Amino acid sequence: MAEVFSVIMAGGVGSRFWPLSREKKPKQFLDILGTGRTLIQQTYDRLVKISKPEHIIVVTNEDYFDLVHQQLPDIPEKNILTEPLRRNTAPCIAYAAMFVKAIDPNGVMIVSPADHYVGDVSEFVATLSAGVNFVRDKNPEALVTLGITPSRPETGYGYIQFDVNARHQIDGKVIYKVRTFTEKPDIETAKIFVESGEFLWNSGIFIWSADTILNSIKEHLPEVYNEFSGLEGEKVNDRERIEQIYSKVPAISIDYGVMEKDKNVYVIPADFGWSDLGTWGSLYENYPKDEEENVIQGNNVLVFDTRRSFINVPDDKLVVVLGLENVIIAEADGMLLIANRDSEQQIRNIVNRIKVEKGKDYI
Amino acid sequence: MAEVFSVIMAGGVGSRFWPLSREKKPKQFLDILGTGRTLIQQTYDRLVKISKPEHIIVVTNEDYFDLVHQQLPDIPEKNILTEPLRRNTAPCIAYAAMFVKAIDPNGVMIVSPADHYVGDVSEFVATLSAGVNFVRDKNPEALVTLGITPSRPETGYGYIQFDVNARHQIDGKVIYKVRTFTEKPDIETAKIFVESGEFLWNSGIFIWSADTILNSIKEHLPEVYNEFSGLEGEKVNDRERIEQIYSKVPAISIDYGVMEKDKNVYVIPADFGWSDLGTWGSLYENYPKDEEENVIQGNNVLVFDTRRSFINVPDDKLVVVLGLENVIIAEADGMLLIANRDSEQQIRNIVNRIKVEKGKDYI
Repeated sequence: MAEVFSVIMAGGVGSRFWPLSREKKPKQFLDILGTGRTLIQQTYDRLVKISKPEHIIVVTNEDYFDLVHQQLPDIPEKNILTEPLRRNTAPCIAYAAMFVKAIDPNGVMIVSPADHYVGDVSEFVATLSAGVNFVRDKNPEALVTLGITPSRPETGYGYIQFDVNARHQIDGKVIYKVRTFTEKPDIETAKIFVESGEFLWNSGIFIWSADTILNSIKEHLPEVYNEFSGLEGEKVNDRERIEQIYSKVPAISIDYGVMEKDKNVYVIPADFGWSDLGTWGSLYENYPKDEEENVIQGNNVLVFDTRRSFINVPDDKLVVVLGLENVIIAEADGMLLIANRDSEQQIRNIVNRIKVEKGKDYI
Repeated sequence: MAEVFSVIMAGGVGSRFWPLSREKKPKQFLDILGTGRTLIQQTYDRLVKISKPEHIIVVTNEDYFDLVHQQLPDIPEKNILTEPLRRNTAPCIAYAAMFVKAIDPNGVMIVSPADHYVGDVSEFVATLSAGVNFVRDKNPEALVTLGITPSRPETGYGYIQFDVNARHQIDGKVIYKVRTFTEKPDIETAKIFVESGEFLWNSGIFIWSADTILNSIKEHLPEVYNEFSGLEGEKVNDRERIEQIYSKVPAISIDYGVMEKDKNVYVIPADFGWSDLGTWGSLYENYPKDEEENVIQGNNVLVFDTRRSFINVPDDKLVVVLGLENVIIAEADGMLLIANRDSEQQIRNIVNRIKVEKGKDYI
């Protein structure tokens, strides 16, 4: 029977969370929720309920090999696939699929970002298992994605529209044929989406057989497929070969490059308390708050007359906050950000400016 | 001819400027204006244009003896009078007057706080000189104070009302008999004061002969005078004697205890660009500002979409401020304050809470 592999995509730089998240140690390698486990460790903890450690694969930038190895010591070193350049998700998935296929030509792959929040792990596992069974037993040609039941008209996520008339069931879960993928909408569009009941948030979590996704990439993204073809057997860990491939392969997302174009895409509505933790806002939502709706992390923080603020500072730092509302205060490695929460979209650009003005050491 | 002594009162703790100003090193010992000289050094620089270094006296808390000695090395050690306890200005002035009288029974004293801002030093010297000449040549019984011509209805200062009909001239300066002293008024009263043209800000800068102020203290504050009487000649530096005195003497200000009661009080209207630097607001007024009216001190501060804010952080600290208005951001010794500028009155109380909750090391 086909083995179930889990692929953790862990190449992001998380610049939106500067200065907590640094290029040297991005968000996925931080215990940003204060649970005692980093985000990638929590992702591993969830997936190891479905895949054996030797079938868990991490794709990451080569700068993060050591961090992955330290944080996930149970994964074989050879399962840490490192990318010399950032080329978005399609090349990353092609690479992982080649690796899986080399081990098990019938292998089924779960693909998950390293840095998401999941509240209900049992439900997460049950949903993924249904997807795995669908791909393995019912429809090996299917590309399956998890779609989160939206709780608000969020403009920070992409949406998946499903076909209410193409409804299947597997292991007590519903699975629909997908009609459309939509990029991040404006607020009016998001409201219409949510009210219609036909749209789900795009979680970026996928289930498919390695062979099927490679065929889809071959069909829709030959310029990606052709670079990776022939990367089989022993060659999947050949550094020189990988560098050659990445120097030529275009940067493109699996959503844009494959999922939006393929005819055989399915979505399982999922409801396990999910966030992509992609913004300070979504991070704020996932923390416990004090009576004034502040999230305070740091053992030496005194707040007075302060509301709806997000404070994350080192435990040994005495910080007094007085008379403020709706601000982010974050300090790490001696660098301090103080921002209006409504301005957080600008942080990524500011980090680019810091890189230019102050140098790489600060980002 | 009587010598001119200058007494610098330097015992304050400056808790309103926490964390820049610390109990271990208060505001007067900091180069808070970024001029290259601390506030007490600038005070010395002004007064040494009138008094010889050996006639400049500093009264301070005994904890600050070393700081004074380091920062003002030209003052003889014996001129640094240390108080074992904080007892407000009347005991401080009685002590200094005893010291002066022991050196020169006819000595004239200028008394000045250590931590004020003066813009026009020549005008400051000219004004003080007129006062000295008035006391020395015209009216040895006079208690003279400098009153700052108000530029706004400030509620943070006390006011001095002068008698428009009792006007004298000396060295090109006008000097009036004082009618009343008023504590910090509310805004409506302050407006009436300023519009009347009869009120000046109480600067806390005085000129009198040592003998005269001692007689006035004897008359109005016998409970202070009696403790200090007999403290003459060699005894003025007798630590044990001073400790005895301070353990018994009440805490009371010279304004409340003497100036408001005495009949022989004069004021010279002064206009040399003055601030008591008693609030973040007054400090803010005395700094150059950027186009968005921000005062930024620190070589690694990046501000975006931020206005009317006051940022004072170490030069080596990277601080990013985004989308804020009207805030104070101050960091020193690893302690951080972020406050709405309109809430600054609460800082003093908060520092007391820090002392209770976190311990003395933090204040």
